Amino acid sequence: MNTTKRTEISSLGEFGLIERLTKELSTSNKETIKGAGDDAAILQFNENEEVLVTTDLLMEGIHFDLTYFPLRHLGYKAVVANISDIYAMNGTPKQITVSLALSRKFCIEDVEELYAGMKLACQQYGVDIVGGDTSSSLTGLAISITAIGTAPKGTTVKRNGAKETDLICVTGNLGAAYMGLQLLEREKIATAGKDIQPDFQGKEYILERQLKPEARKEVIEKLREENIKPTSMIDISDGLSSELMHICKQSGVGCRIYEERIPIDYQTAIMAEELNLNVITCALNGGEDFELLFTVPIADHEKVASMKDVRVIGHIASDNMGLALITRDGVEMELKAQGWTPQSEQA
Amino acid sequence: MNTTKRTEISSLGEFGLIERLTKELSTSNKETIKGAGDDAAILQFNENEEVLVTTDLLMEGIHFDLTYFPLRHLGYKAVVANISDIYAMNGTPKQITVSLALSRKFCIEDVEELYAGMKLACQQYGVDIVGGDTSSSLTGLAISITAIGTAPKGTTVKRNGAKETDLICVTGNLGAAYMGLQLLEREKIATAGKDIQPDFQGKEYILERQLKPEARKEVIEKLREENIKPTSMIDISDGLSSELMHICKQSGVGCRIYEERIPIDYQTAIMAEELNLNVITCALNGGEDFELLFTVPIADHEKVASMKDVRVIGHIASDNMGLALITRDGVEMELKAQGWTPQSEQA
Repeated sequence: MNTTKRTEISSLGEFGLIERLTKELSTSNKETIKGAGDDAAILQFNENEEVLVTTDLLMEGIHFDLTYFPLRHLGYKAVVANISDIYAMNGTPKQITVSLALSRKFCIEDVEELYAGMKLACQQYGVDIVGGDTSSSLTGLAISITAIGTAPKGTTVKRNGAKETDLICVTGNLGAAYMGLQLLEREKIATAGKDIQPDFQGKEYILERQLKPEARKEVIEKLREENIKPTSMIDISDGLSSELMHICKQSGVGCRIYEERIPIDYQTAIMAEELNLNVITCALNGGEDFELLFTVPIADHEKVASMKDVRVIGHIASDNMGLALITRDGVEMELKAQGWTPQSEQA
Repeated sequence: MNTTKRTEISSLGEFGLIERLTKELSTSNKETIKGAGDDAAILQFNENEEVLVTTDLLMEGIHFDLTYFPLRHLGYKAVVANISDIYAMNGTPKQITVSLALSRKFCIEDVEELYAGMKLACQQYGVDIVGGDTSSSLTGLAISITAIGTAPKGTTVKRNGAKETDLICVTGNLGAAYMGLQLLEREKIATAGKDIQPDFQGKEYILERQLKPEARKEVIEKLREENIKPTSMIDISDGLSSELMHICKQSGVGCRIYEERIPIDYQTAIMAEELNLNVITCALNGGEDFELLFTVPIADHEKVASMKDVRVIGHIASDNMGLALITRDGVEMELKAQGWTPQSEQA
């Protein structure tokens, strides 16, 4: 540990820390096309194709709670979260590697459950598990997955290509995974130590969005069919606001999105009301939806407007306009993003 | 958690668990040449080149102890351990991704120290850091690194190609990193709570082998220059015995190695004596040396015998001969390997 000067990570936040760590990273190999700073790195090993690499590390107690998260679902979700980053580059996921660190509370059957979920996701998305590593952990489970994908040369989509007047599109609907999480957390507290089962009737959809999310493979395929190449793209894992900020910052632009255009499922809205939460705030900041956020030239308006599961929610503006949400009553509000801050050490 | 049937992981051990998890993994993409079961997976995205991918997950308290392990060294070592797996496939490491999970005890300066070590190793070996991820952890530090490398098509070396009468070679010397660890552990206990500094004079080499190991880049280059393609290769991260067992098992052969041929440094021997340990056992089972173990056809004997930092320690035998160490007094002993078993949950 450094004992001379100590700056708390919370003073920079997640994005500030990553920026600080990666800002001076230079790359020297000709095969490295794009390093840190997007959903995936872009490598090139031949003339016709680019290779995409992305990685995630999931920690028990931070990213998942095994009290209510079945291991099979966790395995499925861990894979989906990773390959979603490959789709977000407009690529096709091909392989993953899996590293696990396991504490003593896990038995072989547990690990097999976790693997069963990972295998199912791999089957679903045509991905091969090509390697990995298992080792011990003093506390709980850690899962690290690296996904590798490919895209024909020149077809990858980064975060930095959004242009003024581009349309901002999202797939599916937002906030559902977050609402599923709130529901699970509420029932965990309500049923703790009691011999009762939580009642999830009428809430199946938000639970599924939290426990068994899917990546937007078919939208990527549809965009290709329609000959649309987004000018920028990212997957929504940290919330719409946060992802929009990444796109705007890296593209050097501002944006306007409209509250009334933000897609929200009925169950998400009902649950927000039950919990006395503002549903728009949940849709803007709730993470783990794994929907795609992308921008297209205004000329593609008709094509995207008629695409299944795609909604135009606003447009890119000039940098000096900032990032704004226009509410239903026409008020302009500045968008704010959230990242993580470090958790307390466990006692 | 599975509550019906529970089989402890220790009943299978690390290698048994990995085998069980990966035995039914089929691969479906044409780009996947070799999946789980070697130092790295082999992918192919063009006709002329193969792409190698390997990953490792390091957990605080299991793989490293920050009481005596400086963060800068830890960063360096974490990178070296990974790219060593690429060299062990006869490849050239090109890129890494880095994921970190950090608990509250870490400040920004700590993370910068860790990164400084990783950057130094990358510079040393010509590798680019192309991405990663940082997040929170409830307890301590987790580091996950994925390394990507390349090799001209047909030049990768796997674990499964060793043939009867092939010579078994190792680079450098063995057991030094383990002895460095024993020394650090001893001094940790001896100086705990006291205002004294440990005295490491005359033990610099074994400390360096533990705290700042190197990967055997130059041996790989030399083998290429000499036009030697090993029939099998692996890096020694879990100990010579264990790695030899991987090669023999996957190649369907046995082996004979000779105690008197096992390379051991003077400081390793002295330290073993001080600690009343059998130095050969330490050389056979001590991990983290990151030396290369490889086999070559007997026709290459003269070439390898004259190579700097390479020692012929025995030969491959038929499967039914088993794996044996021939002691200095001619006694044949069966080789045994160690893997990890899960640790106790922290209180």
